Amino acid sequence: MALYNFNKSIDLFVRAAKKMPGGIYGHMSPALTVPGSFPYYAAGGKGSHYWDVDGNEFIDYICAYGPMVTGYNHPKVEEAVRNQRELGNCFNHPGEVMVELAEYITDLIPIADWVVFAKNGSDVTTWSLQVAREYTERPKVIMAKGTYHGAHAWCTPGHGGIIEEDRAHIDYFKFNDIESFYRVVEKNKGKIAAAILTPYNHPTFADQELPVDGWWSKVQKTCNEEGIVLILDDVRAGFRLDLRGSNEYFGFKPDMACYCKAIANGYPLSACVGNDKLKNAASKVFLTGSYWNSAEPMVAALANLKLMKETNAVAHMMDIGTRLGKGLSDLATSHGLRVKYSGPPTIPFLRFANEENFFRNQRFCTEVTRRGAFFHPSHNWFISAAHTDEDLEKTFKYADEAFAIVKKEFGS
Amino acid sequence: MALYNFNKSIDLFVRAAKKMPGGIYGHMSPALTVPGSFPYYAAGGKGSHYWDVDGNEFIDYICAYGPMVTGYNHPKVEEAVRNQRELGNCFNHPGEVMVELAEYITDLIPIADWVVFAKNGSDVTTWSLQVAREYTERPKVIMAKGTYHGAHAWCTPGHGGIIEEDRAHIDYFKFNDIESFYRVVEKNKGKIAAAILTPYNHPTFADQELPVDGWWSKVQKTCNEEGIVLILDDVRAGFRLDLRGSNEYFGFKPDMACYCKAIANGYPLSACVGNDKLKNAASKVFLTGSYWNSAEPMVAALANLKLMKETNAVAHMMDIGTRLGKGLSDLATSHGLRVKYSGPPTIPFLRFANEENFFRNQRFCTEVTRRGAFFHPSHNWFISAAHTDEDLEKTFKYADEAFAIVKKEFGS
Repeated sequence: MALYNFNKSIDLFVRAAKKMPGGIYGHMSPALTVPGSFPYYAAGGKGSHYWDVDGNEFIDYICAYGPMVTGYNHPKVEEAVRNQRELGNCFNHPGEVMVELAEYITDLIPIADWVVFAKNGSDVTTWSLQVAREYTERPKVIMAKGTYHGAHAWCTPGHGGIIEEDRAHIDYFKFNDIESFYRVVEKNKGKIAAAILTPYNHPTFADQELPVDGWWSKVQKTCNEEGIVLILDDVRAGFRLDLRGSNEYFGFKPDMACYCKAIANGYPLSACVGNDKLKNAASKVFLTGSYWNSAEPMVAALANLKLMKETNAVAHMMDIGTRLGKGLSDLATSHGLRVKYSGPPTIPFLRFANEENFFRNQRFCTEVTRRGAFFHPSHNWFISAAHTDEDLEKTFKYADEAFAIVKKEFGS
Repeated sequence: MALYNFNKSIDLFVRAAKKMPGGIYGHMSPALTVPGSFPYYAAGGKGSHYWDVDGNEFIDYICAYGPMVTGYNHPKVEEAVRNQRELGNCFNHPGEVMVELAEYITDLIPIADWVVFAKNGSDVTTWSLQVAREYTERPKVIMAKGTYHGAHAWCTPGHGGIIEEDRAHIDYFKFNDIESFYRVVEKNKGKIAAAILTPYNHPTFADQELPVDGWWSKVQKTCNEEGIVLILDDVRAGFRLDLRGSNEYFGFKPDMACYCKAIANGYPLSACVGNDKLKNAASKVFLTGSYWNSAEPMVAALANLKLMKETNAVAHMMDIGTRLGKGLSDLATSHGLRVKYSGPPTIPFLRFANEENFFRNQRFCTEVTRRGAFFHPSHNWFISAAHTDEDLEKTFKYADEAFAIVKKEFGS
């Protein structure tokens, strides 16, 4: 087969770099894949596939970094959006759908007595800390070192433009290390407003880490005893482990939880839910944005969540992700290579077990991607409800060829 | 005529309040109009009109608090969006349109050597401060006391959940009081990264204030001399005074400028532009969000800005706003009432000159709104390019009746 080239992507990027700092910034920066070997600009998509500006088509295992969950251009979501579009989107007031969605989500998610909507994951993770500070009248926030909770100053992975005061009251523990959690609680005793955590550990450039036995029960017990508001950052994992919230998958009860990404199949919406004790404090922390009350993303979310529920989308994604993992691991073994497939089946990550520098992984993902399945070498992947058995078959064929190249170039 | 009622809006709000803190939060909160006398939920819109869930139709002088600028459901903007929609919206990469829009905006706006895109006004105002801190290696930011720059902790008008460190390096001057500006610069000499200002002063619950003679030239000169990055927060006024940026209207050159609201006729997009000296620093300050690279809002922005340019939309809005102001002022005088109409013609505000408590204004706006033209009693209004002579005629008729009621109830 002819391997893909990315000439038009590269040309566009050269133009972009003249007019935009970095050309493409943030999590989509080409610097995070392998410059020159991955597409930079998308042209369209359908189901589990998308195509780039060079006309290359990909089976997509990144799913817009999470937002796509029932498939690009899903007819049911699009129909709902199209109907709303004819009426309009952004007005002086929310649409009736905001009330319907609030009722649907608080019914769907057991811990949710209330909900607010915003646009970015960062909007709601940051706001949730403020609610916890308002409620507890305490300043400190504790989080797992290295965890991504958004791009705001208190948590951004970047270093530029940060001042000391941005993190004056942020302290850190190590995910899955309960002793380090106890230590940071003890050190800041009586001053901690909130502990914010992801449901499992999903760093970039590293294996993913599921919670060890007892982690969540101990974290929750300590928070309850110490009057610390427990906040689940479910922005990345939300609706891919359990439609009712990833805490239901792992068996614990946060006081608040933040959602974004998969909530509306790509339409711009984020949400924070919380329990009753925090509702009054929540009403006192100002939150707003120019487009936060727009009806379209809410219509999309309602259609998307109902669709996922009706079709048991999570179970399908779990099945696809499990078989993808087994298939890739078996293929690697058959080539005499050792890979580590980590994380939950629906949000997996693969790397080569015998390297720290990701060179094999970059080579492998490059070779799969240029054949037609987008694999990211340093960021976790996402499975969608639109992935099919045929997708898996083709993906294994590309992976087989890519593993052969890695074996040939790296030995093992 | 039968006056409007808002029964369905109120019923929905009662349902909402059970599931959302405050029911409707932020700038759309019913508490900021007159509870029970204004619509709470929108159902659809076309051109300069929209209708609420009770079937009431309004000539809209709030324009979704700014985002609507060429008219609800403008066919040219919608056509562009529909074409993109068929291809998709949110992918692993931006679309080619991001490059086209970056080129268009840096061509349109004279101070713009580069641009970045985000979702909220707050996203870009906050980020611009970080860029200034990165560039200057200084911590302080100065702003006009009481100015709205967004909902983030350093600037939110709310009090809930704020800690001391959030504003440790924010200091204040008074808009249009150059001596107060000089004083705060002197006080923080050598430590100020940025001065962030709106192009004119647009507070809520108060008259708007255009810059006095010499204000901008003195502010700019001082910033240049002191190495302070001058940031224009053009989120509210942008594209309604001059398509090239509101600084062109007032005659000054900021180093960075932030846009949102009117940029894409209601589609969720914000932008920050800057000059070349800041581009390297800008590339070092991490920024991202789940939906920031989505193609649809960018397609909408490109169509909307081109449309505004081709149709000379700002001139039309200036004409409508000027005539609205003259008409309302003349009507008030004819009733023996004194009103103050302030701000630029395209973003006006009206209040009664002989009251501090806004009671007349609440009564007046209530009576106009329940007749069919949405007037806000405490927030500035927005004119759109879709407003017509017929809209003005009807509005004057409603205002005439409303002024008569105010006269009867308040005397003068």
